[in-house]
Amino acid sequence: MGKLLVVGTVAFDAIETPFGKTDKILGGAATYIALAAKSVADIDTAIVSVVGEDFPEAHLQLFKDRQINIRGLEIVPGGKTFFWSGKYHNDLNVRDTIATELNVLADFQPVVPKNYLDADIVMLGNLHPGVQLSVIEQMTAKPKLIVLDTMNFWMDHTLELLLEVIKKVDVITINDEEARQLTGEYSLVKAAAKIHKMGPTYVVIKKGEHGALLFHDSQVFFAPALPLEEVFDPTGAGDSFAGGFVGYLAKSENISFENLKNAVIHGSNVASFCVEKFGTERLVSLDNHQLKERLKQFTALTQFDIDLS
Amino acid sequence: MGKLLVVGTVAFDAIETPFGKTDKILGGAATYIALAAKSVADIDTAIVSVVGEDFPEAHLQLFKDRQINIRGLEIVPGGKTFFWSGKYHNDLNVRDTIATELNVLADFQPVVPKNYLDADIVMLGNLHPGVQLSVIEQMTAKPKLIVLDTMNFWMDHTLELLLEVIKKVDVITINDEEARQLTGEYSLVKAAAKIHKMGPTYVVIKKGEHGALLFHDSQVFFAPALPLEEVFDPTGAGDSFAGGFVGYLAKSENISFENLKNAVIHGSNVASFCVEKFGTERLVSLDNHQLKERLKQFTALTQFDIDLS
Repeated sequence: MGKLLVVGTVAFDAIETPFGKTDKILGGAATYIALAAKSVADIDTAIVSVVGEDFPEAHLQLFKDRQINIRGLEIVPGGKTFFWSGKYHNDLNVRDTIATELNVLADFQPVVPKNYLDADIVMLGNLHPGVQLSVIEQMTAKPKLIVLDTMNFWMDHTLELLLEVIKKVDVITINDEEARQLTGEYSLVKAAAKIHKMGPTYVVIKKGEHGALLFHDSQVFFAPALPLEEVFDPTGAGDSFAGGFVGYLAKSENISFENLKNAVIHGSNVASFCVEKFGTERLVSLDNHQLKERLKQFTALTQFDIDLS
Repeated sequence: MGKLLVVGTVAFDAIETPFGKTDKILGGAATYIALAAKSVADIDTAIVSVVGEDFPEAHLQLFKDRQINIRGLEIVPGGKTFFWSGKYHNDLNVRDTIATELNVLADFQPVVPKNYLDADIVMLGNLHPGVQLSVIEQMTAKPKLIVLDTMNFWMDHTLELLLEVIKKVDVITINDEEARQLTGEYSLVKAAAKIHKMGPTYVVIKKGEHGALLFHDSQVFFAPALPLEEVFDPTGAGDSFAGGFVGYLAKSENISFENLKNAVIHGSNVASFCVEKFGTERLVSLDNHQLKERLKQFTALTQFDIDLS
């Protein structure tokens, strides 16, 4: 059973969708990733992140209850927690950012807890590439797998540093528009080929409601998103996907292309729950039986039987 | 081995894409459907359509060479063939129609050849719903399967007639935006449920480069589009999909949900070739070996092995 280290934001989110709105609720990439990973597999998981003194004990307790190690979650005395606020359009693929208050994130210097300096899998959630790089450099043993998530903001503002991180990771997860921006290629097949050359052995291109593509050299695998009656709140879907992905890999300790196919299905599976309610609400109430039942739906959704002889 | 009757346009297309442009080349829904169906399975296939006196002998010969019966392809003396001209944007999902000249299509009264009044499968390509209805009403034996393709234009202009056709068909293929327009539902799951209630047992929602969904009551299956290095010309992709779909069904004579899954994969397979060159060029040069090899790619693309016990 592998050890998983998750780096990313722990945040307050205020979300508005066509179906309702929230006050400041628990959010952040590391939050979704860790919760999703733990729901897929009971693996040894730690978060490296930062919050302010305003971060409620109840949220910390949530992590503890789920046996997510928060020794690496720094609490800055007198500081305020990172805050993001966004509003989704009727087409939930489009959202406006209302507010981004970095607060304690602005000066964050990550410290990886001693017990996790030899983690098997390092999941770098979306964050300043400098923070991601610092975590990679702290690792005393080479991780079996480093997975990177990032976004267009870092391509716009810290591209060189981001490219340095990309060079050091085994897997990158990125959405279709970002893959196009990073490579200047419209075709996702060509974009993935270019990203391979930047470093990562595996390239995962996320297409939201249109699923995700996993590229490995000339091979490609596709995991659909589950067609849902209603998507309630897409916040955290990409991070839940990443969490399910690394959670499954940490448990199965097999990083072959064949097993990564399974991992993206597990990622899509968890993500399909995440979007059913606001924020982390659905992830928190998720149980093993529900995950397994929906995996059957993914199987029915995609598996066919054509005689290829 | 089933008998397939294809109703739809036979046309001249003039196409411009970011990669080049054509003069008037062979096009039309029935053309793509019949060529795609014949490439998937050597089934008894006939076209019901209309062209003008300007339609070249070479195009007629193409159909004859492929043993596509054109007894139902009316040639109007002195008439001009239906002409469509379109220009694709860099994002090939977006196109502008430059010209639509109905010509002989304006007064088309379809006549189903006697030998095909008992066809097993009737494929109603995109066309005036009045023409589609007339064909259904001419059939002397109830077809095993009637498949309908249509578009937003008919929803805007002849909705009542279209709904009458929809009521009489077993399968409808329609794109995502059209499914939303037809039902007023944004969620494709909800849209499919509403369309079921309008008549069709099976609902296929085409999402272009994002694949196709097959709905049957509460069951759903997803066929991805093959990720291609480059899409050269999307014209005819939807019709090729429909052609591969009905061609496979006519051959296998099995209209269970399980077999329809295979049919949408065969449809996606043929469509993935169609877009590689201008117009029908790639369909015409397609052989069995190429189809089979690419089916293996579809299998590798989608099949995984998760233990569900």
